[in-house]
Amino acid sequence: MMASMKQSQLFTKTRKEAPRDEEARNAQLLIRAGFIHKEMAGVYDLLPLGLRVVRKIENIIRDEMDGLGALEIQSSALQKKEAWEQSGRWNDEIVDNWFKTELKSGQQLGLAFTHEEAITSMMKSFISSYRDLPIAVYDIRTIFRNEERAKSGLMRGREFNWKALYSFARSKEEHDTFYEKVKDAYLRIYEKLGLGGSTYLTYALGGSFSPYSHEFQTLSEVGEDTIYISDEQHIAVNEEALNEEVLKDLSLSREELREAKAVEVGNIFSLGEKFSRALNLTFKDENGTEQFVYMGSYGIGITRLVGVIAETMSDERGFIWPESIAPFQVHLLVFGENDTLRIEAENLYHDLKNAGIEVLYDDRSARPGEKLADADLFGIPYRVVLSERSKEQGGVELKERKGDEVEYIAQDRLLAELQQRIETI
Amino acid sequence: MMASMKQSQLFTKTRKEAPRDEEARNAQLLIRAGFIHKEMAGVYDLLPLGLRVVRKIENIIRDEMDGLGALEIQSSALQKKEAWEQSGRWNDEIVDNWFKTELKSGQQLGLAFTHEEAITSMMKSFISSYRDLPIAVYDIRTIFRNEERAKSGLMRGREFNWKALYSFARSKEEHDTFYEKVKDAYLRIYEKLGLGGSTYLTYALGGSFSPYSHEFQTLSEVGEDTIYISDEQHIAVNEEALNEEVLKDLSLSREELREAKAVEVGNIFSLGEKFSRALNLTFKDENGTEQFVYMGSYGIGITRLVGVIAETMSDERGFIWPESIAPFQVHLLVFGENDTLRIEAENLYHDLKNAGIEVLYDDRSARPGEKLADADLFGIPYRVVLSERSKEQGGVELKERKGDEVEYIAQDRLLAELQQRIETI
Repeated sequence: MMASMKQSQLFTKTRKEAPRDEEARNAQLLIRAGFIHKEMAGVYDLLPLGLRVVRKIENIIRDEMDGLGALEIQSSALQKKEAWEQSGRWNDEIVDNWFKTELKSGQQLGLAFTHEEAITSMMKSFISSYRDLPIAVYDIRTIFRNEERAKSGLMRGREFNWKALYSFARSKEEHDTFYEKVKDAYLRIYEKLGLGGSTYLTYALGGSFSPYSHEFQTLSEVGEDTIYISDEQHIAVNEEALNEEVLKDLSLSREELREAKAVEVGNIFSLGEKFSRALNLTFKDENGTEQFVYMGSYGIGITRLVGVIAETMSDERGFIWPESIAPFQVHLLVFGENDTLRIEAENLYHDLKNAGIEVLYDDRSARPGEKLADADLFGIPYRVVLSERSKEQGGVELKERKGDEVEYIAQDRLLAELQQRIETI
Repeated sequence: MMASMKQSQLFTKTRKEAPRDEEARNAQLLIRAGFIHKEMAGVYDLLPLGLRVVRKIENIIRDEMDGLGALEIQSSALQKKEAWEQSGRWNDEIVDNWFKTELKSGQQLGLAFTHEEAITSMMKSFISSYRDLPIAVYDIRTIFRNEERAKSGLMRGREFNWKALYSFARSKEEHDTFYEKVKDAYLRIYEKLGLGGSTYLTYALGGSFSPYSHEFQTLSEVGEDTIYISDEQHIAVNEEALNEEVLKDLSLSREELREAKAVEVGNIFSLGEKFSRALNLTFKDENGTEQFVYMGSYGIGITRLVGVIAETMSDERGFIWPESIAPFQVHLLVFGENDTLRIEAENLYHDLKNAGIEVLYDDRSARPGEKLADADLFGIPYRVVLSERSKEQGGVELKERKGDEVEYIAQDRLLAELQQRIETI
């Protein structure tokens, strides 16, 4: 993936209209901007601009996972039936969103929608003593879920990019310490993605060892979940968990909560001994006694995040990507075919690029209106225009996608100005 | 993925014996070293050390693809039946190594084993005029092939990492120019992987427009192919293509060729109008006439390369990774529990790490013999040992995995010495 590039090299085209069979606004916009291509409902290819956004999100997540001391692996998508039978999840009546396939021999296989069974089973090769613990591993890959309906674009995919983290501890106490660190890491991830203000640690049903489990919900009008927010604590309670016990536990009253629509953008689970018992993953403790490993699992839907951000950080003209995940940092546009201007634009492009700024340079022979419309649609944070008019005003025109203000800046001051503004992640 | 790490953080363990059901030497070694975990025949998880090797290979390939001006995308694994019916490849009698699955609605889907159909179909959204061409896109992802037998470890997987490149041109001439560039890029890739000397551009059957197609074959005793090598030209002819016409075309005589076993590590195809006709991918030329797009496809099996390198760059003690793809550049070992030594080792680790060297630091409380055996098995190019004995000899012991010579170097000279030796990729 090139750090900077010319727009004439980009094969994708923007479109005025979204395809008719696409109902979700996020996918409509992403298709119109040429960030994704629809293979079928719930299945999208990531095109160059979309893949750049996904890679940046992945790297933000990766940094936080590394910070937790977790090691990255690549799990397989094809999974054996046996481990899933041991945990009782192979049956379609228990898990109804499986894709299944089979070997030539007729042996049935599952297409991973999560990896608790596979990784618990794998860890039997590596865990035998208390000295081997704690362990945390993570995996960033595409996952498959056979959704009956997939009408929400990237927010509910049949095939999607996903980060999963699995932890293995000696005791509930050791697990709890790690779990709290993951919670903090997740909050930092949403913060870095520009979703800090609109994302809430949310109390939901499903806890095996407490009255609730934790998930992370981002406000969105098209969200499938209803949450009840405490602005004071910046936390929320999922509708399903809104009961007296949970409220009391959180020292909240119904009156101080406000209702909102939201999308689940992450979840963290204490699994306890559920999978280690089912698959017999044990370790010898300091007294030589066999104990079951205490586990946790923690997910983030990466392409779902792209969908949520597309929904919530966009206007009628297009995306307004946060700097941390925008496909490029700077969109450089040149107007007209004047040779001198073209040479100056080319030089600016090389100067910015060589300074380590990620630039998309619109060098096409298109009309100014078309270039400006594409720039708004792409939503790259800083737009720089070089034109006859900008020259008359003293240099280049600089505009941030998120604002309305247009400034004119001398060409030899542009680099320093951009370096000052662009956040270092 | 952390640049450097301590071995005590690594959850994988080395084993003296390979699992009984694993017949292939590459997988035996990779499992023994904890680089991979076997899910089932032909399906492996990449563990931290194995994933590091794969990522480095991917990045070497990525650089060369970027250099060709190709843009990276992420294609979906789930594919619709229709496009494959149009090209005539859906039928199991035509393609016998499909994995298929289905939606809840009963609609059949394929699991991608290649993407000609999907990407040709996608390009219909972006190609309409000669001005839109040429285009090249590439994709690095896991691919599925329902192999009847999978006994060759990573050399023939049912699920494996794969790079595919697809090119779209206005004419055979435009295509041919790009095709030649890809050929050169492939040769550079094998060179960077340390396989330059043992990999041959090989003439094989299957060309639609010439008496042969091209593939790349790496010498290996366990290879499934037989090739005939011209040492003078550093090219080869695949057994199946060893006929008078091909020999004449290459100005070769049977006498000058030597027979060898080899593994196909890449292939490049001129597809011509095969897929553009089947899926009706056309463009208007400069005269306004509709023409079919001229296509090419180019593959490299990434995990297969790991298998080939594991087979061919290893000895009875373990791997001998080339520097460009070794999981780390330096393996730092400390012997004993002496506090002063431990502090010195810790300082060395930080010095090397801060200088940008990728270090695996064996900080475990294991016996020297165990640490040395693991170091040989892992096959990291530079081994540095700090011990009472090395101190007596004036510093640390430095040994390259590929040689036998042991040198003693003052600690304060180690960094400079390593920087001088380690190739900058």
